[in-house]
Amino acid sequence: MQNYAFVVHNLHSIRVGVLGASGYSGRELCALIAGHPRFSLAFATANAQRGTTLRVRAAGRVHDIPLIAAEEADLGSADLVFAALPHGASAEWVGRAIAAGARVVDLSSDLRPGHGGIDHALPEGVPADAPYGLPELFRERIREARVVANPGCYATSVLVALAPLARAGLIAPGATIGISAASGVSGAGASPKLELLFAEIAEDFRAYGVANSHRHLFEMRATMQALGADCDLLFTPHLLPVDRGILSTITVPLTQPLDDALAPYQAAYADEPFVELTRDLPALADVQHRNVVRIGARIPTGLRTPTLLVFSAIDNLVKGAAGQAVQNANLMFGLDETAGLHR
Amino acid sequence: MQNYAFVVHNLHSIRVGVLGASGYSGRELCALIAGHPRFSLAFATANAQRGTTLRVRAAGRVHDIPLIAAEEADLGSADLVFAALPHGASAEWVGRAIAAGARVVDLSSDLRPGHGGIDHALPEGVPADAPYGLPELFRERIREARVVANPGCYATSVLVALAPLARAGLIAPGATIGISAASGVSGAGASPKLELLFAEIAEDFRAYGVANSHRHLFEMRATMQALGADCDLLFTPHLLPVDRGILSTITVPLTQPLDDALAPYQAAYADEPFVELTRDLPALADVQHRNVVRIGARIPTGLRTPTLLVFSAIDNLVKGAAGQAVQNANLMFGLDETAGLHR
Amino acid sequence: MQNYAFVVHNLHSIRVGVLGASGYSGRELCALIAGHPRFSLAFATANAQRGTTLRVRAAGRVHDIPLIAAEEADLGSADLVFAALPHGASAEWVGRAIAAGARVVDLSSDLRPGHGGIDHALPEGVPADAPYGLPELFRERIREARVVANPGCYATSVLVALAPLARAGLIAPGATIGISAASGVSGAGASPKLELLFAEIAEDFRAYGVANSHRHLFEMRATMQALGADCDLLFTPHLLPVDRGILSTITVPLTQPLDDALAPYQAAYADEPFVELTRDLPALADVQHRNVVRIGARIPTGLRTPTLLVFSAIDNLVKGAAGQAVQNANLMFGLDETAGLHR
Amino acid sequence: MQNYAFVVHNLHSIRVGVLGASGYSGRELCALIAGHPRFSLAFATANAQRGTTLRVRAAGRVHDIPLIAAEEADLGSADLVFAALPHGASAEWVGRAIAAGARVVDLSSDLRPGHGGIDHALPEGVPADAPYGLPELFRERIREARVVANPGCYATSVLVALAPLARAGLIAPGATIGISAASGVSGAGASPKLELLFAEIAEDFRAYGVANSHRHLFEMRATMQALGADCDLLFTPHLLPVDRGILSTITVPLTQPLDDALAPYQAAYADEPFVELTRDLPALADVQHRNVVRIGARIPTGLRTPTLLVFSAIDNLVKGAAGQAVQNANLMFGLDETAGLHR
Repeated sequence: MQNYAFVVHNLHSIRVGVLGASGYSGRELCALIAGHPRFSLAFATANAQRGTTLRVRAAGRVHDIPLIAAEEADLGSADLVFAALPHGASAEWVGRAIAAGARVVDLSSDLRPGHGGIDHALPEGVPADAPYGLPELFRERIREARVVANPGCYATSVLVALAPLARAGLIAPGATIGISAASGVSGAGASPKLELLFAEIAEDFRAYGVANSHRHLFEMRATMQALGADCDLLFTPHLLPVDRGILSTITVPLTQPLDDALAPYQAAYADEPFVELTRDLPALADVQHRNVVRIGARIPTGLRTPTLLVFSAIDNLVKGAAGQAVQNANLMFGLDETAGLHR
Repeated sequence: MQNYAFVVHNLHSIRVGVLGASGYSGRELCALIAGHPRFSLAFATANAQRGTTLRVRAAGRVHDIPLIAAEEADLGSADLVFAALPHGASAEWVGRAIAAGARVVDLSSDLRPGHGGIDHALPEGVPADAPYGLPELFRERIREARVVANPGCYATSVLVALAPLARAGLIAPGATIGISAASGVSGAGASPKLELLFAEIAEDFRAYGVANSHRHLFEMRATMQALGADCDLLFTPHLLPVDRGILSTITVPLTQPLDDALAPYQAAYADEPFVELTRDLPALADVQHRNVVRIGARIPTGLRTPTLLVFSAIDNLVKGAAGQAVQNANLMFGLDETAGLHR
Repeated sequence: MQNYAFVVHNLHSIRVGVLGASGYSGRELCALIAGHPRFSLAFATANAQRGTTLRVRAAGRVHDIPLIAAEEADLGSADLVFAALPHGASAEWVGRAIAAGARVVDLSSDLRPGHGGIDHALPEGVPADAPYGLPELFRERIREARVVANPGCYATSVLVALAPLARAGLIAPGATIGISAASGVSGAGASPKLELLFAEIAEDFRAYGVANSHRHLFEMRATMQALGADCDLLFTPHLLPVDRGILSTITVPLTQPLDDALAPYQAAYADEPFVELTRDLPALADVQHRNVVRIGARIPTGLRTPTLLVFSAIDNLVKGAAGQAVQNANLMFGLDETAGLHR
Repeated sequence: MQNYAFVVHNLHSIRVGVLGASGYSGRELCALIAGHPRFSLAFATANAQRGTTLRVRAAGRVHDIPLIAAEEADLGSADLVFAALPHGASAEWVGRAIAAGARVVDLSSDLRPGHGGIDHALPEGVPADAPYGLPELFRERIREARVVANPGCYATSVLVALAPLARAGLIAPGATIGISAASGVSGAGASPKLELLFAEIAEDFRAYGVANSHRHLFEMRATMQALGADCDLLFTPHLLPVDRGILSTITVPLTQPLDDALAPYQAAYADEPFVELTRDLPALADVQHRNVVRIGARIPTGLRTPTLLVFSAIDNLVKGAAGQAVQNANLMFGLDETAGLHR
């Protein structure tokens, strides 16, 4: 059976290229591709590490992947390209991949709604309205897309938690939604910065990018507006001394009191394979290495304003990046949405 | 001069007893007493560890402190007793210490405003209106007190950050103040619980005691009311994989926009030795092992409601417990408020 | 194919019980069983947690396992029992499982060579000469065994590294082999001890059980003797602030200089599925969550005594406990030795 | 009295310059100088950070230190210069400082015995035989020195542990001393390297610089020879996921069995202010932020070769670098050896 599966795999596999394979998201993508029943790796690029080998583990096996420079990649050999390049540098390569005939999932902020707060012209051939790759909210548009803008990690944790409230008209108009979020350091990328050294991060905790200056805020705002919510967002990210995981603690002023904190979520996400509801409080340990959003909610006592307190936990590299990118790609290629993903 | 100081110390030293010396706060108290220019240790109790020795370090030296059972302590030999006993068990010992003629700083929630949410009768002789030991807010009452209720760690970080806004009438009436706070695990005490094991805490992050169920909420609410603020509090604590430190991220709806986020703090705390204002964002690493509250603030953009975002960092065992207890004791005995404390 | 595999699974599955499922090894066993192609769980016991549910993740799915008391377990319903009980308590249950007709892999030290240094009589029916479950050394005896004594974690890392040298007669007679090993805290078990709290372990490192007092030394000594090596062992374990993983750094005086540090390992382990040789230095990050022993070796310069420096890394809960137990069980039941295990 | 002390301090203070103040050792030096009763800071250099301010804490107070470029420093304004520059770059600046009339403590390996294994000519005026700054071994030579070579961190932990055995003739001639040491990451310096990122270090443990290739080995070997020991050293350093601290686990073949493992240390170090002997096992948590070497020892059972197992713990940035540099400077200027240092 192992052999037969191997043959099937080779006959029908979808050829996948990864641009930017040496970052934390890129490595996670390579591992997911290596363990995917229908994907096979066409190429993996990493300019600074070209000529070396990337070792990933998937499906209980070790895989050694040769890294090449982006310029050396045969984009036309890929049915699908994942672009995991820095913000600002990605759009050009998305354009090249499209021109070469590939479908693209772009993990940068370049194509996302709000464009990460930067006003820039897109290269020719890159659509200005690529669907925003949150399958739980925009599944049908993703299925038909040639290019998908994969959401930011914080935005994923926040929007999956807020969308059911927005769609149900539960968010008090004009009110401020307070979002206090905390992320593991892998979210800052695999770049050698002094402030990310072990000795600087261990035993510390601090906010950064506060007062609404973080890149992910723009896609959150644009998406909330698209969902019909007339609300303000106050987003405050913090840096945790852990490797991976995001927990967002969200305070939502409501139009009316709720009887059951989870009711809006049960209605919206009953059939979602990657949304997990809990009566407990979600923790990073619950979601690490899994492609899920885990949501808990409580109705606080003693407040005059009807309010919902929502907790949303994800793995920033999986559901917040590479896992969601594969989920989007599964949809784009008509595969089982859960193929190659861990729940 | 060293010799002379030593003589002064012996002639005029204030005799101090510690009830509950084996917990994290109790150990910190013993270290602060050992390094204090005017305090000398009368006794240190720890029932389960009685007969053993507690090693603390202070002023560059090692001190070995014999631990006895609380029942063996000669309460009358102490001018001052720090009670660092479990909530519920403390009030009785406060009464015994008062009866023996000592002044008392109680680190439990038993005497605090709101009584930690528990409705209990105080033992005879224990005042129902012990001053709440936040010197930055209630210095004069503390100076004259026989018994002081030392605040909770979260409450310290939050109330020092909110009081100037409350006193200046800046807090929007009826609004909800959102408090997302995160604490190192020493805040949970030195008790052998499965959920506090290294393997459970490392690489994790989660909320607990949410939806306004945490003990410290009651003293926060009562104090905000005493300060004249008509507001609701939504307090959400989280558990960090660090040893010590609390960061509170606080969202305050205002009556009017502010020009300068720090202005209310500069006015209120210009002369405070233990409040530190920063234009940066305060981090745990800035305050560990120091008796300070470090406050930063920002005016968020893009909100329709005038709002202030305040960050308040403390060391939960120092300014959040033992250091503040010593600061209170310094005031009660007419000493320099900063004696024996680190800034 | 997925469906067909499922049918096969149900028709031919081997029923497996776990005694002691709430410890770290027990949980890992339950996860491995849940993800095993031929095993299905008969029962999982945990006296203190009986009536609750254990959540494990395997093969990308969540599994909720009911926990019962050991006395409630129908031992006869299991083809195979994994005993993950405390040392001293295990032998009795091994006897009961044998009497009920099950095969047993015992993860305690009760049946291991040297018996963990404790001289105790085994219950009736428990063999005094159960094979020592290191498949790389004793595969044939394991295949035919009714009961296997699963090795200790440290012993696994050390013996897989030393055996090829012993069998090749390379170890200098009468010499002392120095073993400095370091383990993550999960090796100390899921028991609520003060010294295992996060605040005690983080930022610390220390030796324990030194000067040849550790339980695993006895099985190492007895096995080295069985392998024909006339050497002394000096074993010094240390406690690391990490969750899982053991690195053993081993100094071996040789009978003669080696040309290639890895040569003895290449000869011995060419066909071993779970031994990984590296020209680099093995690290915990290389082996976590994998059922492998990763070995590196160097020939130190500047020494008058021919010496080999060997590094051996394992995951203490996988190859050091649960994974090796499954590997042994695979052999006992004539399955593919790698079934259900991650490389 | 505070005022009087301040006057004394200004009248008689020794002016101290720091070359390389932005590294971890340099920052620790600045903090120790700020808290020293007789030192005052003349300048602090850090080329890349020039124009910025370094914040350190000492004696319970915050100190903000302006950083200048090394070329801007008035070397002649300093009575004493601490050179905390990279290996290879330091000797030149030591020469310049000597020429300007300052005494120097050099924290690099450039002047140490063995020269870090690099054969280089020293600049004119730099003595080839600067005393090796281990006060416990070479106090008298240090007192009279114009330039002192401050030892490496690993070398400090190892040599303080081995010297009493060497001087007592207890080390078996020709034997190999096995040294397995582990260091916190601050030992690798404050440089932005990918392999020192939090996400790379946390949850990992590995050896590096093995098989006798580490720079500190050369000063260890040369010093052991100077102490009359005819032994080989096998030094294996490891990298710990902690900020600071070194634990060396050392195996010493002896000429004869010992009755009491600590006896050689009690004889040698009875009056040493910074050597701490313990019947327990020393841990990093015992020595962090203190200028001590903490030594424990055990006589292993079951070995045919008489052997001593020694554990030696230090803070790599204090007794392993900046603290020891101040200790040496105290001796060079005829001050109390313990001035400004924490025990």
